[in-house]
Amino acid sequence: MLFNNFDFCLYTKAGKHTFLKSFLFTSVLLFGGSASAQKLSPKRMDVLVAKHMVPAVEELKDYVALPNDAVNPDDILKNVTWAENAFGKRGFQTTVLQNTQLPLLLAEKSFPKASKTILFYFHLDGQPVRANEWQQKNPYQMVLRGKGEDGAYQDLNWNALQANINDDWRVFGRSTSDDKGPIIMLLQALDILQSENQNPLFNIKVVLDPAEEKGSPGLEEALEKYKNRFQSDYMIVMDGPMHSSNRPTLTLGCRGSAGFTITTYGPITPQHSGHYGNYAPNPGFRLAKVIASMKDEQGRVLVEDFYDGISFDEEAKSVMAAVPDNKGDINARLVIAEEEKVGSNYQESLQYPSLNIRGMRSAVVGKGGGTIIPEEAVASFDIRLVPETDGQRMVDLVKKHIEKQGFAVLDHEPGTEERMKYAQIVYMQGNAGTPAFRTDINTPISNWLRKALAKNFDKDPVVIRIMGGTVPVVPFVQALNVPTVLVPLVNIDNNQHSPNENLRLGNLRMGMKTCLSILTSPI
Amino acid sequence: MLFNNFDFCLYTKAGKHTFLKSFLFTSVLLFGGSASAQKLSPKRMDVLVAKHMVPAVEELKDYVALPNDAVNPDDILKNVTWAENAFGKRGFQTTVLQNTQLPLLLAEKSFPKASKTILFYFHLDGQPVRANEWQQKNPYQMVLRGKGEDGAYQDLNWNALQANINDDWRVFGRSTSDDKGPIIMLLQALDILQSENQNPLFNIKVVLDPAEEKGSPGLEEALEKYKNRFQSDYMIVMDGPMHSSNRPTLTLGCRGSAGFTITTYGPITPQHSGHYGNYAPNPGFRLAKVIASMKDEQGRVLVEDFYDGISFDEEAKSVMAAVPDNKGDINARLVIAEEEKVGSNYQESLQYPSLNIRGMRSAVVGKGGGTIIPEEAVASFDIRLVPETDGQRMVDLVKKHIEKQGFAVLDHEPGTEERMKYAQIVYMQGNAGTPAFRTDINTPISNWLRKALAKNFDKDPVVIRIMGGTVPVVPFVQALNVPTVLVPLVNIDNNQHSPNENLRLGNLRMGMKTCLSILTSPI
Repeated sequence: MLFNNFDFCLYTKAGKHTFLKSFLFTSVLLFGGSASAQKLSPKRMDVLVAKHMVPAVEELKDYVALPNDAVNPDDILKNVTWAENAFGKRGFQTTVLQNTQLPLLLAEKSFPKASKTILFYFHLDGQPVRANEWQQKNPYQMVLRGKGEDGAYQDLNWNALQANINDDWRVFGRSTSDDKGPIIMLLQALDILQSENQNPLFNIKVVLDPAEEKGSPGLEEALEKYKNRFQSDYMIVMDGPMHSSNRPTLTLGCRGSAGFTITTYGPITPQHSGHYGNYAPNPGFRLAKVIASMKDEQGRVLVEDFYDGISFDEEAKSVMAAVPDNKGDINARLVIAEEEKVGSNYQESLQYPSLNIRGMRSAVVGKGGGTIIPEEAVASFDIRLVPETDGQRMVDLVKKHIEKQGFAVLDHEPGTEERMKYAQIVYMQGNAGTPAFRTDINTPISNWLRKALAKNFDKDPVVIRIMGGTVPVVPFVQALNVPTVLVPLVNIDNNQHSPNENLRLGNLRMGMKTCLSILTSPI
Repeated sequence: MLFNNFDFCLYTKAGKHTFLKSFLFTSVLLFGGSASAQKLSPKRMDVLVAKHMVPAVEELKDYVALPNDAVNPDDILKNVTWAENAFGKRGFQTTVLQNTQLPLLLAEKSFPKASKTILFYFHLDGQPVRANEWQQKNPYQMVLRGKGEDGAYQDLNWNALQANINDDWRVFGRSTSDDKGPIIMLLQALDILQSENQNPLFNIKVVLDPAEEKGSPGLEEALEKYKNRFQSDYMIVMDGPMHSSNRPTLTLGCRGSAGFTITTYGPITPQHSGHYGNYAPNPGFRLAKVIASMKDEQGRVLVEDFYDGISFDEEAKSVMAAVPDNKGDINARLVIAEEEKVGSNYQESLQYPSLNIRGMRSAVVGKGGGTIIPEEAVASFDIRLVPETDGQRMVDLVKKHIEKQGFAVLDHEPGTEERMKYAQIVYMQGNAGTPAFRTDINTPISNWLRKALAKNFDKDPVVIRIMGGTVPVVPFVQALNVPTVLVPLVNIDNNQHSPNENLRLGNLRMGMKTCLSILTSPI
């Protein structure tokens, strides 16, 4: 055994950031590359995965058939039972972890000579469906489709899979990609290993979140109650789409999210814009003044110290540069002439905290609107956080900035006395939100996964230093204090969260191979 | 007969303003102060008006009892019939002027030796009612109330009027003030004259608008069809509240109203604020930039030439200064620490065009909002116009101003090509709206009415050079090209357009006396 140390940036909700230096036992020398496990060549993997395509589709079809909107607890329980069976018959010990919310399922299996334990995170619930918006009758009855000569998808008979599988065919149904597809990929990869009489090179824990699409309300509570059960050396999150190039992708972290709402004031009640136009101040002009002061024309935030502490070493720069993004494509997709200039490219822009107006409102625009001077104007913002920027600190910086614009910033709605005292008032409600996490590029988990994928695919994986969004699993990751990497497996155009969610069969194939690569790579 | 000339500012919808110099025949020398008409002293007027308080209340109660929301044509027709009878029994010839909207009622009566004709404008419709928001069972069943010792209004028996009328008592009911009360005041004043065997000193035309609260949709059409029937020397509009001092008030004009809506753009569809925060431009910041550029911190508009052409001569200044406004009271009522500094006082602020944000919207604030970069942000503005500022010209000035901020200003929603070409786009929809009108201070109608009121009340009337709001009668005033003054008669706290509309009995008394003063003053 030897010590491997790594830096894992962790930022607590309370705000102050700390670099925790953890020392974990690794087993690379003792058990890594266990002699008892035969090597599977990439080619052999392809052959084995090909044999499992039909069983994988069938198992996915079976699982998708269970409705899984977490507003219906009975449905979720059926999904939990299905997973208990699926993991149980693969020799996993399963435990239903009860808590005041929907129960989590934990499946565990140890393997001889394995000393490390990897925790895999998936979720078994799906987004709600509105069946009439789908091109199939029942979003829970999976459909196979391929593009016809006209380029439009048309239904295929399931028998088509027996002859020759086209990787561009897709299976359509709720949760085919988000997130039941990846669960099946891991299960089938385990079956493949079993069929070759091989074992994974580490012990496995799988946690299935029953309500990720609702923000994972039970995750933190379950963690508190069952923390020991989750203990593991590394965590792999198999959720979300791959890079748009559809190349194997590793995502080393995700941004956090803080937020605030600001309200400016005019007269105490809406006033006739004729009788008081040029006399009663309009809250919209005040809100505009505050907002306009926050960013320059290039989209760079003007709040002092907003970008403090962010820098990139050569390795970070090269990792970002290696991501095959195409600015022209992105801008054409967004239909914008120019992007904001916070970073010099798309990946770099995600390394900085962002300041975004989620919504803005004053009185009524269009039908139902009156010729009035409104009583207030409101804007809601989110701040995407990076590990260098603590949520509470960012909210405080914004507050200071607004004060510098000449406003009295209150943490409560102004009363009559304050309205009569201060000409310009902002009522600000802030929340420090969810912090970011980012696992360093040069740490054992990152290096291990990069090697695992590089070895079995043609190219190095796309490595995303940090993804722009925030995932509900972050507080869980933090509380466990476990090095974590996201390994997304599904096609980016999978329509997740929308009607006609789908999984490309080529991604099902690649996903099984990715799981196999991970399971068989020495840590 | 002699010629009196006057300046009457008229601004056409098309935009360019013109000063029309009209020459009207006046009859001051020939018939003014007709020997056949006995003078009524102010004291005698008070005695006569006191005798008519009960009949006035009873007639108003009778008229208020007819529901008059113009969404119900049958109800409006009953109101028209009531007025036909009321004017008919006073010797007026009445005509129901049919048009494609609700019919107008015209009542006419000529008097011996009268050479001038005055057109009185009222409306017989009222705002909708939601009975449950009123303190009385039926908003159309008038209730008499007086303040008890606790300062709260309590119902009084109608018999209370027989003993001694308290001027601070009020009658509550829809349209008691807006605008049936003033109709009754004129009718009762006519009765008083009749009881004294006297005639008004001019011929009278009365037009009753059936749908003022709906924006008078039929007025222009009726005018086109029956223009000759409306011909008159002067027009008096008896609608709206008196100055807050509750002193007799003359309002020489009203501001007009133009408007525009501007839209700024972000990505073509809302984007995840995590994935594109710092990359896809946010339309809210762009809108804020445009809006913030429009006004300085004192509320003065920064659009070039916005205030061009506005100046006040000494007389205008002294008229404005004579209005008994109290800045402290106004600000306390609006609950604002500071007013905008466009004019040096409230009256002066109304002499300038105003720029007001009626409403503002981007995505959703609060419940239902997402963490997204919205696709667009919209703001709606109104510009209150004064006679010096043509609506279309003002909209054009704003357009130029926005272009100077670096935006491509389009008159249509941008297509893909334009979005890919221009980094900053504003889609602007403007309308030139309704022009202002203002009758000069030193014109026969103004002088006549000022004298009429000054003679019979203790003090000079409050003269409002221009009121801030816009009234639907303006296009009618313009098309008739007739010198017009508003003579408001009701208490400012009458809750017009709200539940518990009321008329103060002191105002009913003052209103009858005002009508008497006008009817008996030589032109």
